[in-house]
Amino acid sequence: MRLVIAQKNNKQNDVIEKIVSLSKRKGFVFQSSEIYNGLNGCWDYGPLGVELLKNLKEEWWKFMTYREDVEGLDAAILMHPRVWEASGHVENFTDPMIDCKQCKARFRLDTLGEQVAEKKKEKLLKTLSAKLEETDKEKFVVLQAIIDSEATLEEKFEKLLETDEIAVALLEEMNCPQCGTKASFTEPKNFNLMFKTFLGPVEKTENAIYLRPETAQGIFVNFLNVLNSSRQKLPFGIAQIGKAFRNEINTKNFLFRTREFEQMEMQYFVKPADDKKHYDNWKAARLEWYKSLGMSEDKLRYHDHPADKLAHYAKEATDIEYLFPFGWGEIEGIHNRTDFDLSRHEEYSTKSQKYFDEESKEKFIPYIIETSAGASRGFMAFLVNAYNEEEVNGEQRVVLKFHPRLAPIKAAILPLVKKDGMPEVAREIESKLRPYMKVFYDDKGAIGRRYRRMDEVGTPYCITVDTQTLEDGTVTVRERDSMEQIRIKKEDLLHHLIEKLA
Amino acid sequence: MRLVIAQKNNKQNDVIEKIVSLSKRKGFVFQSSEIYNGLNGCWDYGPLGVELLKNLKEEWWKFMTYREDVEGLDAAILMHPRVWEASGHVENFTDPMIDCKQCKARFRLDTLGEQVAEKKKEKLLKTLSAKLEETDKEKFVVLQAIIDSEATLEEKFEKLLETDEIAVALLEEMNCPQCGTKASFTEPKNFNLMFKTFLGPVEKTENAIYLRPETAQGIFVNFLNVLNSSRQKLPFGIAQIGKAFRNEINTKNFLFRTREFEQMEMQYFVKPADDKKHYDNWKAARLEWYKSLGMSEDKLRYHDHPADKLAHYAKEATDIEYLFPFGWGEIEGIHNRTDFDLSRHEEYSTKSQKYFDEESKEKFIPYIIETSAGASRGFMAFLVNAYNEEEVNGEQRVVLKFHPRLAPIKAAILPLVKKDGMPEVAREIESKLRPYMKVFYDDKGAIGRRYRRMDEVGTPYCITVDTQTLEDGTVTVRERDSMEQIRIKKEDLLHHLIEKLA
Repeated sequence: MRLVIAQKNNKQNDVIEKIVSLSKRKGFVFQSSEIYNGLNGCWDYGPLGVELLKNLKEEWWKFMTYREDVEGLDAAILMHPRVWEASGHVENFTDPMIDCKQCKARFRLDTLGEQVAEKKKEKLLKTLSAKLEETDKEKFVVLQAIIDSEATLEEKFEKLLETDEIAVALLEEMNCPQCGTKASFTEPKNFNLMFKTFLGPVEKTENAIYLRPETAQGIFVNFLNVLNSSRQKLPFGIAQIGKAFRNEINTKNFLFRTREFEQMEMQYFVKPADDKKHYDNWKAARLEWYKSLGMSEDKLRYHDHPADKLAHYAKEATDIEYLFPFGWGEIEGIHNRTDFDLSRHEEYSTKSQKYFDEESKEKFIPYIIETSAGASRGFMAFLVNAYNEEEVNGEQRVVLKFHPRLAPIKAAILPLVKKDGMPEVAREIESKLRPYMKVFYDDKGAIGRRYRRMDEVGTPYCITVDTQTLEDGTVTVRERDSMEQIRIKKEDLLHHLIEKLA
Repeated sequence: MRLVIAQKNNKQNDVIEKIVSLSKRKGFVFQSSEIYNGLNGCWDYGPLGVELLKNLKEEWWKFMTYREDVEGLDAAILMHPRVWEASGHVENFTDPMIDCKQCKARFRLDTLGEQVAEKKKEKLLKTLSAKLEETDKEKFVVLQAIIDSEATLEEKFEKLLETDEIAVALLEEMNCPQCGTKASFTEPKNFNLMFKTFLGPVEKTENAIYLRPETAQGIFVNFLNVLNSSRQKLPFGIAQIGKAFRNEINTKNFLFRTREFEQMEMQYFVKPADDKKHYDNWKAARLEWYKSLGMSEDKLRYHDHPADKLAHYAKEATDIEYLFPFGWGEIEGIHNRTDFDLSRHEEYSTKSQKYFDEESKEKFIPYIIETSAGASRGFMAFLVNAYNEEEVNGEQRVVLKFHPRLAPIKAAILPLVKKDGMPEVAREIESKLRPYMKVFYDDKGAIGRRYRRMDEVGTPYCITVDTQTLEDGTVTVRERDSMEQIRIKKEDLLHHLIEKLA
């Protein structure tokens, strides 16, 4: 979950603010538990948001599972706690935390610098440098190398706090951001990001369970169940969409870093020798998928992980990044996880996770190529990508240029005026379309304003019933992006729209 | 969550066992974290199960939200803790628990009798009756009234444990089911069934949050958000599908009582004076929905709650019950919740939840008619309902008679033999159908066995490519339930199936 910050400017922040505001006003996204002043890091999807999210997940599901070599799965959020020992999450899924001994406030060590003013930072580094030069030449060299590097002051500060031997010395010079006491911090301690709860009525260690921090493990532990029930052979995949939870200390950027989020993951089981081929295939296929749903090519890129930055389970890894207004951010990861996961589960469960290859008569643990997409992040990326402000006839229009298959409402039915039998014809069209797609009937206000309202929520087709409809049975179909209108017989409408949406 | 136990016999238990076994073997449902010996009360949906569950949810979603007066929503599982104070869950959502002082084992008080043999129960009641007659005439009368009632011994025992003044006296006569020590129980204490966890890195009371025990509250707290963004007027509804969690002490009956489950809830906001009308409408509409998807009419019934058994928030309530092999069980509840929920949220959030009626110029808190269906329970009911054993030509066939729209796989494509160009034609048909529906290609084994395999997972249509296909371009379409076959031109197949599935 990397976030690369590009150059910021006010205009870019502006766009996010506009989208957050539009989201609330039009019913895409609300702050969770808003009447109780919200719950940090959680969001609710409103009437239009839930449709966009459903459409996105459905597109993924069809693309990933309507094929012979991928099976679906929906594993429980609550899993046996040994799963998270095997996966390494109990041990490694942590952030370093410090407490103020005075006021008991708790801080995430690596982002403590965010709460220190720039001038103060400079002063702190000067003081520390002078002190270490006197007392500890070795540490002084490490410190100076970081200070002299190319990074911004903020990045240097973060780097120093991540460097064990320097962090403690630096903390001795700093004040608690809450109560102001100097040098009052405890030693850094690792805090696990999994939400913990207890199964059954007794709150003791052996009953502790976790909300899953990723959906992937639900797939790994079901490898043999799916293999045996589906009669698949390698290579084959298991796909799953579901919620995951991370007790993030710093949530930020709207839907980008939240505590509750949804993932769309597919784990592809392959012969070890074929790993590179399948990794490359999925890497290409997944980027294409975003493009096929209208995501701008120039706002998509790969970020390949350099060998020395790979996660402990990975042999090769790349992020698909989208250029958000706040910078490039990961929306999907493709990873060659090797045989790490199934080997660990074999070790921890003591149940063989090996595959028997009938051709070669060999038994082995398959390699796994993972495609791990964020549904919540994808939602945000498609929303940002769709947002456009245009000038039309001297007026501004806001239009969400969703791919028709992603659009929450597929068609609006608009009687030009509320008389002369137009509403009746419009209602008849509405009831014919409604079983097949999400439609919206609107007879309020001037037709131009109604078009604008539909543009603003991304409805691709507006169907207008006018005087000519009453004469020859044709209606106009206005296309959202081009704003062009064609006339169509109302009997042909359903077929026309179904084709457009296919 | 009532469960009415009907007369049991071995044959009925047998059916559940067969379905559990079929579910694992064919990939409908697996035990969660099975390689770690499972996590009690949690289940994973396999390749076929996830499709059945998805189809069920999609049918509900279309029926409930593809209409003008209902909006969708997808609220977060984690909510502000004040929500559960307002809803009454913190105070009331509890089971009474007792501990053994000796061995520290914990038991649910009201079901403690399940762990006592029948003979032992009789003896206990005799002893207690004799003792109370001597020492406490008042309690004796209460006890005797329960003993003399019409209920079974098990029910009498449960009733006694639920009666505060008797329970303590009875516990003094009982032995711990685990270590056998007599009269070693603590006083009963209420245990909250919500899973608790902590937001952020500090595990202190003010950071405690809960996994939602129902999806309904996510709808109530968003009432104004949805109202304002959608421009709806009363009456209108908000629909949501999502996971909920209850830390049940006794999980049972496969998917019927689990700790993690999925709900499909719709809350319909109405003028107080119209409550009865809408309650009756939804009560009728919801039962019809189950029938429209093929659920047997004679296995469905209403259970209206008598006035003295209504929940604290309800003015009127009914359960839709299905006759499972273990007895009648609730699969959906329809409740007139009055203005209880919004009034409480207005009180606890201090934010007005009133609706302004433009016609009457009045401000008031709407009444809510709730339709609360279990997706997991519905899944189980449709699975049980579909299960059939039939004799065909002297052989038994197991067939899942799912409604075509619920069936996990819509069509199988079967080349009669693996030669003469039949596989090529079959593959061509497969690739034409696959973008539109879940299909399965099978060329392994005799055609009769392939049909049986598809019957066993409920595939409604089997398409066979045979010698005649090569001559005239027609294929056979075999219908699952009647086993009748018709010949159709392969060009017309897609259209034919889409019509059947519509």
